[in-house]
Amino acid sequence: MYKLLKKSNISKARNGVLKTAHGDIQAPFFMPIATKAAVKTLTIADIENLQAQIILSNTYHLYLRPGLDVLDDFGGLREFMKWNGPVLTDSGGFQVFSLAGTKSRKDDLVKIKSNGVEFRSHIDGSRHFFTPEKVLDIQKVIGSDIMMILDICTANPATHSQAAKDLATTLDWARQAREYYEKQDFADQNIFAIVQGSIYEDLRKKSARDLVALDFSGYAIGGLAVGETHEEMYKTLDFTVPELPENKPRYLMGVGRPENIIEAVRRGVDMFDCVIPTREARHGRLYTWHHDDLTQADFYRNITITNAKFKTNKKSINPTSKFVELREYSLSYLNHLFDTHEPLALRLATLNNLEFYLQLMEKIRKRIDEDKL
Amino acid sequence: MYKLLKKSNISKARNGVLKTAHGDIQAPFFMPIATKAAVKTLTIADIENLQAQIILSNTYHLYLRPGLDVLDDFGGLREFMKWNGPVLTDSGGFQVFSLAGTKSRKDDLVKIKSNGVEFRSHIDGSRHFFTPEKVLDIQKVIGSDIMMILDICTANPATHSQAAKDLATTLDWARQAREYYEKQDFADQNIFAIVQGSIYEDLRKKSARDLVALDFSGYAIGGLAVGETHEEMYKTLDFTVPELPENKPRYLMGVGRPENIIEAVRRGVDMFDCVIPTREARHGRLYTWHHDDLTQADFYRNITITNAKFKTNKKSINPTSKFVELREYSLSYLNHLFDTHEPLALRLATLNNLEFYLQLMEKIRKRIDEDKL
Repeated sequence: MYKLLKKSNISKARNGVLKTAHGDIQAPFFMPIATKAAVKTLTIADIENLQAQIILSNTYHLYLRPGLDVLDDFGGLREFMKWNGPVLTDSGGFQVFSLAGTKSRKDDLVKIKSNGVEFRSHIDGSRHFFTPEKVLDIQKVIGSDIMMILDICTANPATHSQAAKDLATTLDWARQAREYYEKQDFADQNIFAIVQGSIYEDLRKKSARDLVALDFSGYAIGGLAVGETHEEMYKTLDFTVPELPENKPRYLMGVGRPENIIEAVRRGVDMFDCVIPTREARHGRLYTWHHDDLTQADFYRNITITNAKFKTNKKSINPTSKFVELREYSLSYLNHLFDTHEPLALRLATLNNLEFYLQLMEKIRKRIDEDKL
Repeated sequence: MYKLLKKSNISKARNGVLKTAHGDIQAPFFMPIATKAAVKTLTIADIENLQAQIILSNTYHLYLRPGLDVLDDFGGLREFMKWNGPVLTDSGGFQVFSLAGTKSRKDDLVKIKSNGVEFRSHIDGSRHFFTPEKVLDIQKVIGSDIMMILDICTANPATHSQAAKDLATTLDWARQAREYYEKQDFADQNIFAIVQGSIYEDLRKKSARDLVALDFSGYAIGGLAVGETHEEMYKTLDFTVPELPENKPRYLMGVGRPENIIEAVRRGVDMFDCVIPTREARHGRLYTWHHDDLTQADFYRNITITNAKFKTNKKSINPTSKFVELREYSLSYLNHLFDTHEPLALRLATLNNLEFYLQLMEKIRKRIDEDKL
């Protein structure tokens, strides 16, 4: 599934290609987030124009809405949302822990049992039970090219004993998932395991080794970008990534800012997703290029378009964008759209930030190719 | 400015062309609403693809945000929002009365004086004063192709004496506006007067005659679609429109549903604007064609896409739309987008409804040409 194309001479960064049933993906890559079967404010034509290679959706959200009956009727998520490319779905474990408990006291609503996790819907409070097998069944209906297994995302900070306890459960579930995947017909669907273990070196290494022994299609590193420092995150990558096989893709879940992505690529990571570009867009925070040298800290700039100083700035939002609306509309106009709560503001800012992130990945691949990263 | 092309044999309906500095407009026509310098959720490319001939914006809103400094700096609204076609701006009188009072007791906030109206901004409570001359000055900065004069939109229901009192003020203001327009250099900008008089025949006729005597570029009929019955509205048109000159365009402000537009066209109206297609879109109410015979009551259908019955409907939103997203996405998917509060829902529904309204006007012009309406 993963073919290594080029290793950088100056870091652990690598270029490769991920082959899926719905298209090849040049790695390292970033996955725009379509949690609920839509990248917020954008059409599929927009996603195609952005040249996104793959999108990410979410098992927990799709299971609740539109539900499996609808997805099954359409033959999967891709036909439902009219996306022709590959799809990765998170297993929903993270959402069960972060969302399902929000209606009341979490302890009442999310119960981890040996064979899975019981939770209540954050929408209507209805009771559900996810097992390692069930989340794969759901992802089969969704038709994900890359399925993630059910895991426990250990909260940060966590004691060593709590992290070890969560890890034991996660490993049990990984074994069950791997067995189920072997027995059932998942055809062209890939299955990724998730390395956990908080920031503890012994736990992360054990987690990686145990999962590698089970032979998954790829390996995610979960439980980061949950409140630890950047240094802790980088250190965790430093001792975790070398445990993962070179011929399998490595996915750092939920990370991050451009500089975090670059640091992770330097440490051998291939795959990324993050809400930052789309969520910050909706708050008027724009990513813009300053220069092309990714080794300098100031290669990009954030601007807060809602700042009053943009009220009279007649410059283009992005004069070199492939989107005519970003080339033609001014910063002043975008400031006005945010100021007056016009929904068009969200679309323009989202396009701007996703274009930036996808350009970032393209530049990263080029720099690796040139041994400059 | 208005050239009559064809009068229907079977009604007072007429085809014509309105010539403006920024393009000719085939009448009867509908103006999509860009109150605050944007048609909600749409880009200018969308408006162009919809083949909208003219858009409507609002003096009160633009005056407050982005403000005259910004608009002046851009050389007007068209450059600010990148729209190449003609623009009509409402004078803001209606908004002063309907919005400016919403922060507290209206009586304290909106004061009609003989020479204009004092109001507080609905945004920050700041005090402002609009005179008949000032709203023209503002519309000059905006660069409107069609400027509306300041008027008092009499509330419904109104006593004859209240309506007569408002009308006297409105006529005074119209005289002042007409004089100011004559004295100042408004170049290619047209100026429209607004016939008021509630539903009283004598007042409407007097208003029309007085304004016609002042010789404006065109005549609007205001103070309708404010709560009166459809029969009252049609009756008012029946005795008002014949008072207006044949060689000037007639604009029914704020109307309405497709059947209201058709009835008004039958009575000789040329121009329309209404929030219905865009506002109802945002509440999931879609306009769809049933058949082409506009003389039958059931030529269109409204569907409420949020209705659970659409959850599993795999049919296209509109298989004959010029927008690929409306052809390709299913009703089921749109139902899901509304259900999950995805902002893309608003864009799709808005495109659908504006396409319907603009097609409606095209069909109306064709039917008039064929003496079938």
